[in-house]
Amino acid sequence: VTKPILFLSDLGLRDEFVGVCHSVIAKVAPGTTVIDLSHGIAPQDVLLGALILRESVPYAPEDAVLLGVVDPGVGTDRKAIAVETPSERVLVGPDNGLLSLAWEAAGGATRAFEIAAPEVLLQPVSSVFHGRDVFAPAAGHVAAGMPPEKLGPELDPAELVRVTLPEPEITPGEIRCQVLDVDRFGNVRLNVRPADLARAGLQAAPSLKVATTSASTPARRAATYAEVGPGEYATIEDAWGWMAVIRFEASAAADLVVRTGDPVWLLATEVT
Amino acid sequence: VTKPILFLSDLGLRDEFVGVCHSVIAKVAPGTTVIDLSHGIAPQDVLLGALILRESVPYAPEDAVLLGVVDPGVGTDRKAIAVETPSERVLVGPDNGLLSLAWEAAGGATRAFEIAAPEVLLQPVSSVFHGRDVFAPAAGHVAAGMPPEKLGPELDPAELVRVTLPEPEITPGEIRCQVLDVDRFGNVRLNVRPADLARAGLQAAPSLKVATTSASTPARRAATYAEVGPGEYATIEDAWGWMAVIRFEASAAADLVVRTGDPVWLLATEVT
Amino acid sequence: VTKPILFLSDLGLRDEFVGVCHSVIAKVAPGTTVIDLSHGIAPQDVLLGALILRESVPYAPEDAVLLGVVDPGVGTDRKAIAVETPSERVLVGPDNGLLSLAWEAAGGATRAFEIAAPEVLLQPVSSVFHGRDVFAPAAGHVAAGMPPEKLGPELDPAELVRVTLPEPEITPGEIRCQVLDVDRFGNVRLNVRPADLARAGLQAAPSLKVATTSASTPARRAATYAEVGPGEYATIEDAWGWMAVIRFEASAAADLVVRTGDPVWLLATEVT
Repeated sequence: VTKPILFLSDLGLRDEFVGVCHSVIAKVAPGTTVIDLSHGIAPQDVLLGALILRESVPYAPEDAVLLGVVDPGVGTDRKAIAVETPSERVLVGPDNGLLSLAWEAAGGATRAFEIAAPEVLLQPVSSVFHGRDVFAPAAGHVAAGMPPEKLGPELDPAELVRVTLPEPEITPGEIRCQVLDVDRFGNVRLNVRPADLARAGLQAAPSLKVATTSASTPARRAATYAEVGPGEYATIEDAWGWMAVIRFEASAAADLVVRTGDPVWLLATEVT
Repeated sequence: VTKPILFLSDLGLRDEFVGVCHSVIAKVAPGTTVIDLSHGIAPQDVLLGALILRESVPYAPEDAVLLGVVDPGVGTDRKAIAVETPSERVLVGPDNGLLSLAWEAAGGATRAFEIAAPEVLLQPVSSVFHGRDVFAPAAGHVAAGMPPEKLGPELDPAELVRVTLPEPEITPGEIRCQVLDVDRFGNVRLNVRPADLARAGLQAAPSLKVATTSASTPARRAATYAEVGPGEYATIEDAWGWMAVIRFEASAAADLVVRTGDPVWLLATEVT
Repeated sequence: VTKPILFLSDLGLRDEFVGVCHSVIAKVAPGTTVIDLSHGIAPQDVLLGALILRESVPYAPEDAVLLGVVDPGVGTDRKAIAVETPSERVLVGPDNGLLSLAWEAAGGATRAFEIAAPEVLLQPVSSVFHGRDVFAPAAGHVAAGMPPEKLGPELDPAELVRVTLPEPEITPGEIRCQVLDVDRFGNVRLNVRPADLARAGLQAAPSLKVATTSASTPARRAATYAEVGPGEYATIEDAWGWMAVIRFEASAAADLVVRTGDPVWLLATEVT
């Protein structure tokens, strides 16, 4: 029996890139369950990939291999790594921080190895697509039971690249935050938690002012989509505990002209 | 051995929503085959989701669990349900009509249960994404062999919400119908069957006039795509027995300016 | 144990077409691993489908069934075929050349059969979607162990339809080529190999001029994405050994106004 693999990338589903990785895994580890967590990460957005990988950890099978491929440094001297955690979970991907939030969520990096063993790599290794030639076969071998130390030389976990999520700036009555992601529905996920609203003294406000560099709107506090009426904006706690800006049957992101990384302000609504 | 799950939603494949549901299922019921029937249903289009679920029934394995997540009422008092049918098939989703056409196609709803058992729900249950916290784990448990009555209190099938497909208006020489769906190719599926053409006396017409609120065109009757020449429109019986309007290597929907729900008229072509 | 299936089509993932094929396979051959190689082939682009299928061969499990559905002639007298190769691999799809590059890559077509057995076809067979009614069930039966000769009458492999990739025109200092494909990132794959650059005497040039009918730009030779700086174009050997034109964090295809099939010129840069 092989372990399940959770696969995240910025490769998209239009081309054959993801399918070929699945094929390589099926060759290395027949019968393995490979779950496509998401392949819609914006190209080369390592931070967003790291966030989505992290948030999948609580929902991943205990023995899952997490495979991440967002890899702008492919072909350079950035390392390919496999990271062990206190659970049975193993993370596989480039050493650019993509895996770092997930291993923190999984209890920390206990051991790490460079993926370098000739019997693991597909030869010749392309200098532009390690998903196929390095990461997929490594994940397949781990899923099939290969101990991570067989993948290559041991690395010091403390030396691995890490990323950190940006923190919002909080003052009384105002949160300066930024867009973490925009989903299929145009909902705008902010780097703000409900506790941040409390820190700004905004937790009881029935409505907030949401401002971007291009637009500004009142937005009611809502707990469900069904509360939001035609034309209305709302702020809502999303399924992963982030505050999101949404709009009734419309794209809040398009209407507020924001995308990932853009600044957003949450403000007390003026009382008149 | 677990039962296969057919999964339909409006969640799209860009984000991690579908992948996390797969992950939850893999945790609850390792090794389960989960088939993505479609995640491209237009956001919150319960009727279209119900139609596509229904049309999958004849092609579904006899013991399949049909999992549907098109759920504009998430977090409100709409119930989460599992519905048994005379076959081994079980349907899981919100009680908003999404499952209703499928259970009719599967022979009727024999028993129904609310999904409420604490050992099934993922805690805390989000008020915005029951796909992950309610429906996916319920489908996983049923796939793994849990009898539906263990999911929660029994419900009266007669009290479940149902949807009905709109019927075309048929008069001699004219059918007023509407767009059920537009596919990847821009083909326009109408709520019209070949038998409806006969009822309108149009069954032998070699060409029909297709009119929308924005455009009008003659369209030949065709049985295969290859019969349709450059620039031509045609009406054709699609793979599920609906009449569709197509155009040679082009999007009939874009060129006729229609989308789901829009009215369309099929008319006798004037003979001059 | 069933054989894995690699599935390529132009059906897209928005609609239920691919999902229903998966469902049919699960019914015929429960537990089969079905890998979606790509469903983003441009509608009816048989040549591109043939290329992508061929390039997957080295990465496919030894016993894989390759299922291809790019089928503009569906419902006409084009045959449905299954093709054996010297390896265990079997190819299933329409007889329009879609499979031909893959069987060449797999060592040649040793035997071929028409898919016609009543116990394989799903009745009634639609005249517009043989993916569901002919190809998916045939692939499922082969995956489950049915010998290809049970699918229907034997055919002469020499009589099967073949496609050929266009060759570039090479003269000293100039390659006239064409666009094979544009990927998710806007990278432009050309029908040019590194050896073709040598044949044109361009192998040592640190930069090339890339011209289309609409635009022209210098493009440096690069081995990795990381070498390409802001605003720059580059030519790079892609993961399948084709020369591609790329641009730093941008779509080279959009900026050079090209798509599949368009002509491109690679030229020596003027030395001044």
